[in-house]
Amino acid sequence: MDTAISIDIGGTNTKIALVDASGAILARERLHTRASQSAESYFEAIFERIERVCRPFPGRQLLGIGIGAPACNEYDGTIERSANLLFEDRVPIRQIFADRYQLPAHLVKDANAAALGEKLFGGGRQMDDFILLTLGTGLGGGIILNGRLVSGASGLASEMGHMRVTGAEERQCGCGRRGCLETFVSATGIIRTVFALLAEETVDSRLRHLSYAEVTARHISEAARAGDPIARLAYERTGAVLGAKMADLVAAIEPEAIFLSGGLAQAGDLLLQPARKHLDKNLLHLMRGKVNILPSQLGADDAALLGAASLALFNQKEKIL
Amino acid sequence: MDTAISIDIGGTNTKIALVDASGAILARERLHTRASQSAESYFEAIFERIERVCRPFPGRQLLGIGIGAPACNEYDGTIERSANLLFEDRVPIRQIFADRYQLPAHLVKDANAAALGEKLFGGGRQMDDFILLTLGTGLGGGIILNGRLVSGASGLASEMGHMRVTGAEERQCGCGRRGCLETFVSATGIIRTVFALLAEETVDSRLRHLSYAEVTARHISEAARAGDPIARLAYERTGAVLGAKMADLVAAIEPEAIFLSGGLAQAGDLLLQPARKHLDKNLLHLMRGKVNILPSQLGADDAALLGAASLALFNQKEKIL
Repeated sequence: MDTAISIDIGGTNTKIALVDASGAILARERLHTRASQSAESYFEAIFERIERVCRPFPGRQLLGIGIGAPACNEYDGTIERSANLLFEDRVPIRQIFADRYQLPAHLVKDANAAALGEKLFGGGRQMDDFILLTLGTGLGGGIILNGRLVSGASGLASEMGHMRVTGAEERQCGCGRRGCLETFVSATGIIRTVFALLAEETVDSRLRHLSYAEVTARHISEAARAGDPIARLAYERTGAVLGAKMADLVAAIEPEAIFLSGGLAQAGDLLLQPARKHLDKNLLHLMRGKVNILPSQLGADDAALLGAASLALFNQKEKIL
Repeated sequence: MDTAISIDIGGTNTKIALVDASGAILARERLHTRASQSAESYFEAIFERIERVCRPFPGRQLLGIGIGAPACNEYDGTIERSANLLFEDRVPIRQIFADRYQLPAHLVKDANAAALGEKLFGGGRQMDDFILLTLGTGLGGGIILNGRLVSGASGLASEMGHMRVTGAEERQCGCGRRGCLETFVSATGIIRTVFALLAEETVDSRLRHLSYAEVTARHISEAARAGDPIARLAYERTGAVLGAKMADLVAAIEPEAIFLSGGLAQAGDLLLQPARKHLDKNLLHLMRGKVNILPSQLGADDAALLGAASLALFNQKEKIL
């Protein structure tokens, strides 16, 4: 069966996989994105993982390479600059991989890749209009409208993480500004919310015994499931910010659903219930009850890998990109 | 040449025109939307105007009827409910006109019609991705992405007037909620802003001599052009709210341009300059300078008429709707 190499570059981890045309992941590897000292040594580490995932499948027909990366330029194949990566301006990443393997290479924003994965293999298969949000280190997103990916006039669309939350505390963002949505709604954002709540409230919490440096989103979800009041309040507040902000976007583009993916979304109903409540509360009356917030139907680890692979497996640029 | 009847239903005026396939308006009429006592007498008044615009052109080939209306359902051809009209729920307006004239009738949201007009005959002819905002009694809008109109999953998209402005005074909106963008950015909104400023500031202004009931957006633009400080401040504040809110939408969909149409947009640079400044200030760094705010290239009276007519003149539903 046809296969493709897929690379999903995230702020924390970089994932490398060999994917076939049915959407099955045949082999996978990962590495820490920030472990490398330079772009060169980072790419060398990826090349090594690619050879490792391909080695067990010597007979495979390799059609190409799909790369999902944050804040990249899909039109010219470069990473322009990124709040969460340490690349300098305009690394020609698509060309680097095409040259190395003498195969067609495709570059797509990581969250757009996840949206394509959701459209081709996940919960969006029957939908022409949806938003996918990836809640990881930051908040990424991909938008499908009229059945096609929205890339924007110069490939910079889907920066929903940098929509602004006003009227609340204006948290410093990695982009150099303050008040961006991802400072509240992301794995990092909910940690910040926990620390704000520990300051505001006096109620006891197991989270009072962890430092900012050691606490993770997983500590918060485990605490919330055990009934910890600060953790529960943190999900409630995160869902409220998410729901209210998505209501603005729904007013403009009215998707059928908003899918949530990524580490923070694994909290499930802890996040979904307040997000749904506050989305509905902030919608125009005639839109209420018409837009659902749903968990991604792809594994959090897999959506972007599958979407990026689909660019190499199918002629997606013609069809939906 | 082929012609179509076009009807543009607005909160204040209803316009009726005969339009040909080159985008020329051959004849036009108008009536006050709220002058009629019932939906029936309102439709009778429109029928009469239609006969009046057609009478001088007995030889014309009439292809159909295009109707632009606020808050209508494009998919089932009804007006569901409207903040600015007095219809009851679900008037089957498309069927009413199709039955009356035995011609194909098309219904599109008024601001979507204006966006189609801008795409086919105006400043968006060379663009695949843009937003059009109509700043009249309320704030409407239409969005073209990937060259196609964004209608939304159930035809309710483009309610940009009901995106929420938080962190400011939360003004009551015709939709029953508070804080909607159109309570600031519309012909009505700038009047409200003038009255807020007359309360806040002590500087002299000719606008201190007009009652709320008598002041119009034209009084404000004339005062601003004459250097009136309250009027100038009102445009500055209106542009600031518009620019900041559009930055959110630009982050998500990255259009090439935002066109402004309608009565308030006729103020030109009075509104455009602060809007551009505050849009840019609120954009992510890598998007700055990439999105322009431009005046519609169609007459404020004509954009929606031309766009609605285009639905009847061309097979637009297949191509871009």
